[in-house]
Amino acid sequence: MSMFPSVNQRLEALRQIMREQKVGACVVPTSDPHLSEYLPDRWQAREWLSGFTGSAGTLVVCGDVAALWTDSRYWEQAEVELRDTGIDLMRAGQGDVPAPYDWVAERLPKGAAVAVDGQVLSVQAWRQWQKACAGAERRLVIEADLPGMVWEGRPPAPAGKVTEHTAPWACRSRRQNLQALRADMQRQHAQWHLISALDDLAWLFNLRGNDIPYNPVFLAHALVGQDSARLFVDATKLEAGLRDTLLAEGITLEPYENITAALAALPAGETLLFDPARVTVGLLNAAVQVGKAESINPAHLLKSRKNPEEIANVRRTMEEDGAALCEFFAWFEAAQGKERITELTIDERLTAARARRPGFVSPSFGTIAAWQANGAMPHYHATEAAHAVIEGDGLLLIDSGGQYLGGTTDITRVVPVGQVTAEQKRDYTAVLKGMIALSQAVFPAGLPAYALDALARGPIWQLGADYGHGTGHGVGYFMNVHEGPQSISWRNTANPHALMQEGMITSNEPGLYRPGRWGIRIENLVLATAFESTEFGDFLCFETLTLCPIDIRCIDVAMLSHEDITWLDGYHKQVRERLSPLVQGAARAWLERHTQPIIVS
Amino acid sequence: MSMFPSVNQRLEALRQIMREQKVGACVVPTSDPHLSEYLPDRWQAREWLSGFTGSAGTLVVCGDVAALWTDSRYWEQAEVELRDTGIDLMRAGQGDVPAPYDWVAERLPKGAAVAVDGQVLSVQAWRQWQKACAGAERRLVIEADLPGMVWEGRPPAPAGKVTEHTAPWACRSRRQNLQALRADMQRQHAQWHLISALDDLAWLFNLRGNDIPYNPVFLAHALVGQDSARLFVDATKLEAGLRDTLLAEGITLEPYENITAALAALPAGETLLFDPARVTVGLLNAAVQVGKAESINPAHLLKSRKNPEEIANVRRTMEEDGAALCEFFAWFEAAQGKERITELTIDERLTAARARRPGFVSPSFGTIAAWQANGAMPHYHATEAAHAVIEGDGLLLIDSGGQYLGGTTDITRVVPVGQVTAEQKRDYTAVLKGMIALSQAVFPAGLPAYALDALARGPIWQLGADYGHGTGHGVGYFMNVHEGPQSISWRNTANPHALMQEGMITSNEPGLYRPGRWGIRIENLVLATAFESTEFGDFLCFETLTLCPIDIRCIDVAMLSHEDITWLDGYHKQVRERLSPLVQGAARAWLERHTQPIIVS
Repeated sequence: MSMFPSVNQRLEALRQIMREQKVGACVVPTSDPHLSEYLPDRWQAREWLSGFTGSAGTLVVCGDVAALWTDSRYWEQAEVELRDTGIDLMRAGQGDVPAPYDWVAERLPKGAAVAVDGQVLSVQAWRQWQKACAGAERRLVIEADLPGMVWEGRPPAPAGKVTEHTAPWACRSRRQNLQALRADMQRQHAQWHLISALDDLAWLFNLRGNDIPYNPVFLAHALVGQDSARLFVDATKLEAGLRDTLLAEGITLEPYENITAALAALPAGETLLFDPARVTVGLLNAAVQVGKAESINPAHLLKSRKNPEEIANVRRTMEEDGAALCEFFAWFEAAQGKERITELTIDERLTAARARRPGFVSPSFGTIAAWQANGAMPHYHATEAAHAVIEGDGLLLIDSGGQYLGGTTDITRVVPVGQVTAEQKRDYTAVLKGMIALSQAVFPAGLPAYALDALARGPIWQLGADYGHGTGHGVGYFMNVHEGPQSISWRNTANPHALMQEGMITSNEPGLYRPGRWGIRIENLVLATAFESTEFGDFLCFETLTLCPIDIRCIDVAMLSHEDITWLDGYHKQVRERLSPLVQGAARAWLERHTQPIIVS
Repeated sequence: MSMFPSVNQRLEALRQIMREQKVGACVVPTSDPHLSEYLPDRWQAREWLSGFTGSAGTLVVCGDVAALWTDSRYWEQAEVELRDTGIDLMRAGQGDVPAPYDWVAERLPKGAAVAVDGQVLSVQAWRQWQKACAGAERRLVIEADLPGMVWEGRPPAPAGKVTEHTAPWACRSRRQNLQALRADMQRQHAQWHLISALDDLAWLFNLRGNDIPYNPVFLAHALVGQDSARLFVDATKLEAGLRDTLLAEGITLEPYENITAALAALPAGETLLFDPARVTVGLLNAAVQVGKAESINPAHLLKSRKNPEEIANVRRTMEEDGAALCEFFAWFEAAQGKERITELTIDERLTAARARRPGFVSPSFGTIAAWQANGAMPHYHATEAAHAVIEGDGLLLIDSGGQYLGGTTDITRVVPVGQVTAEQKRDYTAVLKGMIALSQAVFPAGLPAYALDALARGPIWQLGADYGHGTGHGVGYFMNVHEGPQSISWRNTANPHALMQEGMITSNEPGLYRPGRWGIRIENLVLATAFESTEFGDFLCFETLTLCPIDIRCIDVAMLSHEDITWLDGYHKQVRERLSPLVQGAARAWLERHTQPIIVS
């Protein structure tokens, strides 16, 4: 029996309305009006329609067929969740899998209509669909939200509280941020700037919210002029005091829905700056009079480069996070064989350990605790209905992180339970070597981040293995755990802004996944920092920020180079020195045991 | 006094005709009707006008200013050669240097004409200029060859002989090649295919020519139909017997100039396949009736993957080439302090040593023998007028190669003369480590070649250094020493065909150049070959083809890892074993001495 018995009925309801509206294909992206990575329930139409719960994917429904595209992280999961739904799984990125555009064009007759809700479609994506549809003589219709028309019991928009991010945790003033943004607008000859990206605008105004799980953001749009800053947000989310504070600084609050009218009222002869990847075509189309200029959101670039005060806070936050991990791992080691431990217990215990630390706000994403074969699904999540008990021999992968007032953490460790095989050690050591190689990289400032990827993958490729996800994503400062522009992935060459710059915090997380057997990923956050300036220009290196022992019981020491061992011993020495003052008792003993130098036999 | 006293007069003559024709800017690319990398003298208009002798660059002449764009390989050389010409050097690739399009747009009023000779402008480049000119409201004029109109004493087109590349050196028949090409045309629904790229068509027909120094190609175009193959070439270049052979195989010869009429006569309703990067807009515009389809030249991809017989021949050729290098280096070592040795002597002696080897045809490019600071100019060429004497202490860089009937070689070595400093050793060892890291790479088959670049640059970046050229270019089989599509350079992400595939031969040549001091580059050719097939797909590794000792006197052994030393000792063992049978006396003794294992103190 399918886990999602109503998917077929939901699809049928959608098809009914498609027939009524004479629409040949309905495209349902994973998207909301802010083009967020993680969506409020209200905009989980793709999940509601398909039953696929992964965080990324595009559903396309035609009259008699339907297909869902998702990337390699989710192939295993999607295969399970789409069973019995009649929806074909399209493994995006695999050689012969067509793009949704081409797939649609093949299935529809000329003149047929393709519907996508423009209110959740970026200008960039709209252009791609527009081009593909024009080329194939199909009509793109963006005016209607077809899934919304059949969605009974659709959740309301979230109504989380908005709070101020204050000093000493906030290290830049709103005035500074607005000044830097307006200077950029001036360089681009724009009087107005529209921001829909929730993290960019939360950063700009030093505000944090609670509308999306794990991401401390709130639903809003912002319209910034040279002399005005208008925040379109449900004002009841803010305490009166905060509203007054903002108003005193010239930041006006207006109802969330009024952004459309505000855009329509922008005068002809002036210019609106917008980011085609971060504004929906539905919203932008409201700005009928004003001229338009395109660029990446200036706030997106500004927030990616953390300043020295933010970095100092992150270092302290990493110490607290590392101490929480020591407490968790000390419990885990002691409890083995004594308590029943499941993947869910691990999440509970780890989150509880973090919650005891000062500055902790929430997890930064849903903890991934994945035992053996579950670890081979890079974004596996245990559920009440389906989770493993940690027993027998194997590898446990734990990918977790915290939102703290002084920074955002994201760490993956793999720990052995019982006996570890030679094959597991070989895989673990290759991943570790890749992680160390990237940790030790030196490179020209401003190098496109994609160019660094091979350093991490090299040792894994040597085993005739690879991993389908990127090696590194940007990480926010008490902000989204995934932020741009940088991305360490050889596939990501398209964004000309994805350059590695001083002050950026990026994950370093190579992996190796053997479907049905085990998964390995080792992840630290690293800071791009000055190395030296020479006749060849400025060079950067990485400072490893994450502080937590890397389990050496899974290492095949013979595979490590002298340099690898030196790095690992040095890392463990630092971890011990910086975490010891923050842990006591069993946690301290665990830390001591797990930060000893490697013994080369 | 300028080395090129007449550059100003030539520019003035061009400006005179620009005024007459009401042209605001004249663009002179480095290009010929075949879009060759190295040009026959007849099409060296950019060099003739500017005095800059480098192999790459674009000259733009306006009424009162002129500028020349060239890449970092040539910045030092261009600075010297452009002195007193009034032509500004534009360091292409440097952060704030505008593209020629933008530079022109800034300098010309709206409506002004920009002239480029369409007969030497690729369709691809024409589109870029067209877009830039349209955007800036300038007119692009491609009908006239303005430099040609003022070029007194312009050299005639070359008239080198064309010969057949025969078995056992030719390892594929013309029939096979045409069959593979036509199959590709069919897949793309094209009845016709135009080939202007000289190496692609020489490969297709197993013909070799002598029209361009170092490149065994001849001036021709080819028009291939499903039942016909028409070669547009000066028939007097071929012996009667060869003409008959071709005719018997259905390959007709027609005068070189007739390609224009032949294209014009292609019927409406049929389709002509062309490569927008390898056909000029001037020529393509002649095909007025036929429909058009675009793709990379199928021959370009087919010839890049060498077959097992070609690879076996290349291995034997590498042995002969390595033996010639041993003889040369043995002479060089013995002659030091006894004979006067200059950079030119080195070229003579090395070429003579190669010429004694079976199958040798010519050098594959102009030998670069560069002493100390000259080595810091990556594409330096000694001349009668300006060359260094090898004396005192320092590093000598020699980059050279041969065309043999059984393959094309390209090798760079750096050898010490007298004392070597610790800094020189550090630089040399970093370059060597980069070369070794790439030599040992394992990677997924079909990986874009740009993704491998960081492996070679990593150790050089660690010194706060870098190099401006790519790390690896494709190499032909008794064909151009630079061929596509692969390019190991993080900057080269634009070509979707530049994937690393089994059978490709690529250079592996990291470098480090200290302007005014010394230059280091170590280069081997490597073959992409099967490593293993796993659950993750097919993986490739590199077989090093080049056989010649790497001078260990320049190595700082402490910088080498155990793996580096193992690779180097293994390489030297193979070099010794494979070259020993081919050398005697002093050369053999030199080979013995220079292939000893590293001694770790």
